[in-house]
Amino acid sequence: MGYTTLNEETAKEYARTKTSVFAAEADLVCKEIGDGNLNMVFRIEDRGDPSRSVVIKQSLPHARIDDSIHAPLDRARIESEMLVLHDKHCPGLAPKIFDYDREMYAIVMEDLSDHIVLRKGLIRGTKYPRLAEDMGQFLARSLFFTSDLGMDPLEKKELQKRFVNPDLCKITEDLVFSNPYFDADNNKIDPEIRDRAEENWRDEELKKEVAILKEKFMTQAQALIHGDLHTGSVFVTPESTKSFDPEFGFFGPMGFDIGAILGNLILNHASQLWHKPDDADRKDFREYLLSTFKGIWETFSTQFRALWEEHVTTPMESNPVYREDYIERLFADAIGYAGCKMTRRIVGLAQVEDIRSIEDADVRATAQIAVLDTAREFIMKRHSFASIDDVIAVVRKHQK
Amino acid sequence: MGYTTLNEETAKEYARTKTSVFAAEADLVCKEIGDGNLNMVFRIEDRGDPSRSVVIKQSLPHARIDDSIHAPLDRARIESEMLVLHDKHCPGLAPKIFDYDREMYAIVMEDLSDHIVLRKGLIRGTKYPRLAEDMGQFLARSLFFTSDLGMDPLEKKELQKRFVNPDLCKITEDLVFSNPYFDADNNKIDPEIRDRAEENWRDEELKKEVAILKEKFMTQAQALIHGDLHTGSVFVTPESTKSFDPEFGFFGPMGFDIGAILGNLILNHASQLWHKPDDADRKDFREYLLSTFKGIWETFSTQFRALWEEHVTTPMESNPVYREDYIERLFADAIGYAGCKMTRRIVGLAQVEDIRSIEDADVRATAQIAVLDTAREFIMKRHSFASIDDVIAVVRKHQK
Repeated sequence: MGYTTLNEETAKEYARTKTSVFAAEADLVCKEIGDGNLNMVFRIEDRGDPSRSVVIKQSLPHARIDDSIHAPLDRARIESEMLVLHDKHCPGLAPKIFDYDREMYAIVMEDLSDHIVLRKGLIRGTKYPRLAEDMGQFLARSLFFTSDLGMDPLEKKELQKRFVNPDLCKITEDLVFSNPYFDADNNKIDPEIRDRAEENWRDEELKKEVAILKEKFMTQAQALIHGDLHTGSVFVTPESTKSFDPEFGFFGPMGFDIGAILGNLILNHASQLWHKPDDADRKDFREYLLSTFKGIWETFSTQFRALWEEHVTTPMESNPVYREDYIERLFADAIGYAGCKMTRRIVGLAQVEDIRSIEDADVRATAQIAVLDTAREFIMKRHSFASIDDVIAVVRKHQK
Repeated sequence: MGYTTLNEETAKEYARTKTSVFAAEADLVCKEIGDGNLNMVFRIEDRGDPSRSVVIKQSLPHARIDDSIHAPLDRARIESEMLVLHDKHCPGLAPKIFDYDREMYAIVMEDLSDHIVLRKGLIRGTKYPRLAEDMGQFLARSLFFTSDLGMDPLEKKELQKRFVNPDLCKITEDLVFSNPYFDADNNKIDPEIRDRAEENWRDEELKKEVAILKEKFMTQAQALIHGDLHTGSVFVTPESTKSFDPEFGFFGPMGFDIGAILGNLILNHASQLWHKPDDADRKDFREYLLSTFKGIWETFSTQFRALWEEHVTTPMESNPVYREDYIERLFADAIGYAGCKMTRRIVGLAQVEDIRSIEDADVRATAQIAVLDTAREFIMKRHSFASIDDVIAVVRKHQK
């Protein structure tokens, strides 16, 4: 049948045939809602029952044909296949996938337009009571079931070939693990914190630890990780949490995903001092952030341990002494990666609205330096924290 | 042109066209010297100048066609491509490759029939004065140039896909890292050492450390490793050292290759007490083995450091504090893997002639227990040895 580019008319019929969401006679309405650059994104709704709707994301032909933009082609495939796996392993915690069509480079999925991006919600000071539990579950299930613990090691090695993602890994290797630690051209460093950034550049022990975390990112095929799980890759309502945008997916260290979401909560925590000037509210929201930080780790580790106890029966891996050591090592990784993710958002290329939207330069610098100090301690002490409460004590010390 | 099975006649012409070893008019003689099971192996010699000879190894069609023996097909390809890379990165330390023909599943390489298998040479008590230097160089160059340090990380990720080797990795995962640590059906445990073997099975801390080394073997894509570099995979003369049989090759932890050769030297060391009854000779040869053990690590680490200093210019990796930490971690890995390799050869399925050929059961048991005790200490203390001399002190303590 081959590839044809969908338009608002053909997308309606495509959606009707590829899902059972709509009745055969349903009166459908379709709107293109993407930025039109690499993908077309269509939202199709049943006019007679607006609760019935789907989204179709289709990779554009120039992204598939032009050799000079090789990356987007494979990126679309990887994103689609990641979404299929997330829906399988974590139903309800990622968009539901109705169809993935390799020929059409199209994926038909749940419409999440009633959700908002978590980062925006947190900046507004909205609490999401399900967030800790849902993210902890998402992390535990998506990581466990794509590791040698939760899947056949032979199949895992074959699956790994499908998720070799060099171009997007390179972006992370540079922007997260290299550029923030020297005077790279594309760093973005506010003049008020230049001295503090340079302090990191002279700190050979810190740079050694970051290099070790980078090496682990580049070599440890522990599980199929999301690869970019910051608060901009999670959609929420107070009742629902959905991981999204897994185009950076590859087999890497589990701690990188855990640390991504934890580190971004701490970035928001640092920003809340000034975004919520009323003192009682501010304190309360910051406590919510820290309890979510703790809750994500606790749900993750409890659930990961439960999955291990339920599914792992091989002689070497069913040893509880090994299991607890494994979880301790995940904890150290997660805190270390959280520190790396925090640092790159303060001095690196792609910064975050949480901090950027603080208009007063001195106030912003205070928050930025607090983040850098917290991050350094996360990275340097990650092996010696006895508990998540010890980690939170470091946040409280630097982000008063 | 497609595939045809070579015979002694066609192999001669094949060798003539694929290499420049023979003159056009040379009178060639050819003999099939393989076991004929999965491969044909032809040795072709110039009758007029017997110093001119090559070997052709061709994978047999049933190994290529029969689905039930999928492994050998990919095994032949991986072995050939590994040999090509070893010849490229370590000229002189692996067989010279004249041609690799993907259609014919044939590789034309240097004839090594003047060499013998290192294990056999050591059992005879032959010293190889070049061994430490050559093996150290082979390890340093083959590992460095296939790691993210010595090659472009983007290319490394693509190369990794070609060396996914699930079936052969599974053999190692079972025989090296699992079965020796419980009452597996295919273990082979002499009655005299049954109690000592069971001691390991009850040692949860030892089993945890082995599980960590297993996990690293299964997940750490650090470099393209040989994967089976024991003393049976090295061909030697007093003047020459050639690594061979890299069919287990895949991207794994460097320390696994280093530990394989080191552990097998210690197995021979344990056996020499009885194979060389004359005391002065015995002591002298055992000292040679320990100085080779030390020399391999020292050459490896010195050469690896030199390659790093020469080739690595990226900001995070050129940090000498990181470099020294990296080499320290390789040291711990190498000693840990040496311990795993020693243990599997005493209680696991595939044992070694060094130990097996000790006929007196009590004497053999003494050697076996000495190896198990040494191995346990290698595995448990690998992170705390300050130097290779400290490791050698452990050998001397247990293998008097």
